Amino acid sequence: MITEIPKSEFHERIRRVQKELAKRGLDALLTFGSEAEPQYVRYLSDYWPAFETASVLVPVEGDPILIIGPETLTFATGRSKVDKIRQVLEYRESSEPEYPGARLDTFPGVLDEASAGRGIKKLGLAGYTVAVAPVYTALQQAAAGTQLVRADDILIEMRKIKSPNELELLRLAFRIAEKAMAAVFDSVKPGMTEAQVVGVAQEVIYREGAEYEGHPMYVLSGCNSTYAIGRPSHKKLVAGEVLQLDLGARVGGYASSVGRAICLGHMPDDVRRFLQVGLDAENATIELMHAGAHAGQIARRVQEFITGRGYGDAILYGPCHGIGLMECEHPWMETSSDYALQQDYTFQVDSFLHTREFGARFEDGVRVTQDGVEQLSTYRRELVVI
Amino acid sequence: MITEIPKSEFHERIRRVQKELAKRGLDALLTFGSEAEPQYVRYLSDYWPAFETASVLVPVEGDPILIIGPETLTFATGRSKVDKIRQVLEYRESSEPEYPGARLDTFPGVLDEASAGRGIKKLGLAGYTVAVAPVYTALQQAAAGTQLVRADDILIEMRKIKSPNELELLRLAFRIAEKAMAAVFDSVKPGMTEAQVVGVAQEVIYREGAEYEGHPMYVLSGCNSTYAIGRPSHKKLVAGEVLQLDLGARVGGYASSVGRAICLGHMPDDVRRFLQVGLDAENATIELMHAGAHAGQIARRVQEFITGRGYGDAILYGPCHGIGLMECEHPWMETSSDYALQQDYTFQVDSFLHTREFGARFEDGVRVTQDGVEQLSTYRRELVVI
Repeated sequence: MITEIPKSEFHERIRRVQKELAKRGLDALLTFGSEAEPQYVRYLSDYWPAFETASVLVPVEGDPILIIGPETLTFATGRSKVDKIRQVLEYRESSEPEYPGARLDTFPGVLDEASAGRGIKKLGLAGYTVAVAPVYTALQQAAAGTQLVRADDILIEMRKIKSPNELELLRLAFRIAEKAMAAVFDSVKPGMTEAQVVGVAQEVIYREGAEYEGHPMYVLSGCNSTYAIGRPSHKKLVAGEVLQLDLGARVGGYASSVGRAICLGHMPDDVRRFLQVGLDAENATIELMHAGAHAGQIARRVQEFITGRGYGDAILYGPCHGIGLMECEHPWMETSSDYALQQDYTFQVDSFLHTREFGARFEDGVRVTQDGVEQLSTYRRELVVI
Repeated sequence: MITEIPKSEFHERIRRVQKELAKRGLDALLTFGSEAEPQYVRYLSDYWPAFETASVLVPVEGDPILIIGPETLTFATGRSKVDKIRQVLEYRESSEPEYPGARLDTFPGVLDEASAGRGIKKLGLAGYTVAVAPVYTALQQAAAGTQLVRADDILIEMRKIKSPNELELLRLAFRIAEKAMAAVFDSVKPGMTEAQVVGVAQEVIYREGAEYEGHPMYVLSGCNSTYAIGRPSHKKLVAGEVLQLDLGARVGGYASSVGRAICLGHMPDDVRRFLQVGLDAENATIELMHAGAHAGQIARRVQEFITGRGYGDAILYGPCHGIGLMECEHPWMETSSDYALQQDYTFQVDSFLHTREFGARFEDGVRVTQDGVEQLSTYRRELVVI
């Protein structure tokens, strides 16, 4: 059993990036990553910043460089699968410490080093959506004569089809999330707060081998269950209210999330009708998925299914999104999507519906296969009353 | 006992911002916030984004606006202390979902609405260091005729002196962190992984009233203890190795962290000498603090103290940094600092030293008073062998 991607696979990823850079006439790729959005950095280095931000700079030829801030040299040296590490001030913490006397590298210096002095005329950027202003602005200044081109798609495409090692980590992350859900089902009761339920799940995921939560976990009850995205509060759980549980673990960088909507004590009839639609929508989505299936068509058929059951207004987004280094990543599956599913794409089948009174998410991971999907989580995907 | 800042205090904060905007001739302030860096948004709205990002737009006159992305309207409506909420596409998740058919606001529209059609000629920005590129670039385009001015200091100054409510939340956050530390001391043993120790702390903080961890908690052992910033791994704990514990809770937005360096089984002599210096440095720092004391002078005296003990090379940064909405925020206390401590400033006294073999942090929260400090955490600030 592995708990991290081996170094050889990072080397292979770098080589694939370099091949694509050459094809596109790019001199280098610069990726951006932060504490909550590490994906574009972690994919190439396994390094996951905290407090500070980070980048990986991959020249079309030669060695990649991990760029970090002033405080994380020992951490990055211990963790990064990219050996060459440079420290640049703009990657420091958001409170902008001064570090008097610290000897640091500069952005122009690192760009020059990566290109072995040849200069970078055309620089691809990956992770533009998560780059912070000080780093992005410093880059624009350092690379004044350089053409900056968004090239997120190089890594997005590579990340869509999961390798055997990535799948092993994802399977483990989902098994741990299922154990957290089981522990919550065993202990949840009226009077506990939403946040306390999250604590039960947290203890389990770390005990069972997670390095962190898969995303900020949430437990949302009553009217809070209408939140598509949320955070737990100190609201106490009440019998008969919808309880939306979104629990996930992270292993070797790979995230899981399992979503269940349950009731404590009893399930009122209107809640039961509503939850059944969400549950059926998830199962209907799974049945439509296989390698070659058209994403937009699946999304439209699921939309029709939900609309036919009278809940068209309760739809907020499409029925699936990718999962991997982030609990939510490319590709999304929307009615506007125009691509075919491929083997070893991994998705969250994410059936979220909400009315004004309550909401419900049923969510599980799947891997696309030739005939259908491999389900990464299935634990009690049913209407549960505890 | 409060668990959140009351709405009236948010109104008061908005009024103070507006007064400062008028004084500076600014037409509005725009703040930025994200999942891991919510401080500039949460301070004015209590809203803490997840997955998406957010802003608060405060016009010099009239009502503030919370700006969010497409998926968080119910969440933000339930949580925000700012009532007017608008949704702009650029605040979406980093995987850029398309949301076909969604009706959203635009950046120019929201800027126009905030100024009641008068237009914004001069716009202050707070949280530039945490703004992500898509939002920052969209702002630059939307506000093409507008002068953009960094105005972080408006909120930084307001946030330095803590109100009675802020102090109550901080005290609770530190009490919870101490309970987590006590639970870890009760259960930690050789053979557990670093991550499993974090799990013990996680369960406690949520059970005891935290809404989240105070920062990504870490437990670092052996050579990993050299990390100033780190993340737990699956390395197993070994008797006689340094174990660096950094555990913190968050209550109503306010973060705590308590740092201890301990050994399991026995403490080798070289480790004991090293840890004693870190511990003495923390206590020496605390003794130098009081309202009116000069920050730079304290930092220089602590540096001299550590250097005199033979560990000058082990210093990475100054002996204190602010704490509040972030575990690490302004003001930093460095040898280059030139300001006087004021009553109700809150600091982390953060004594971190590292050699090539091991590192140690002793860290506690304090509130500056006229005569000295109120200590927010003290639990077993000593050399501990378990």
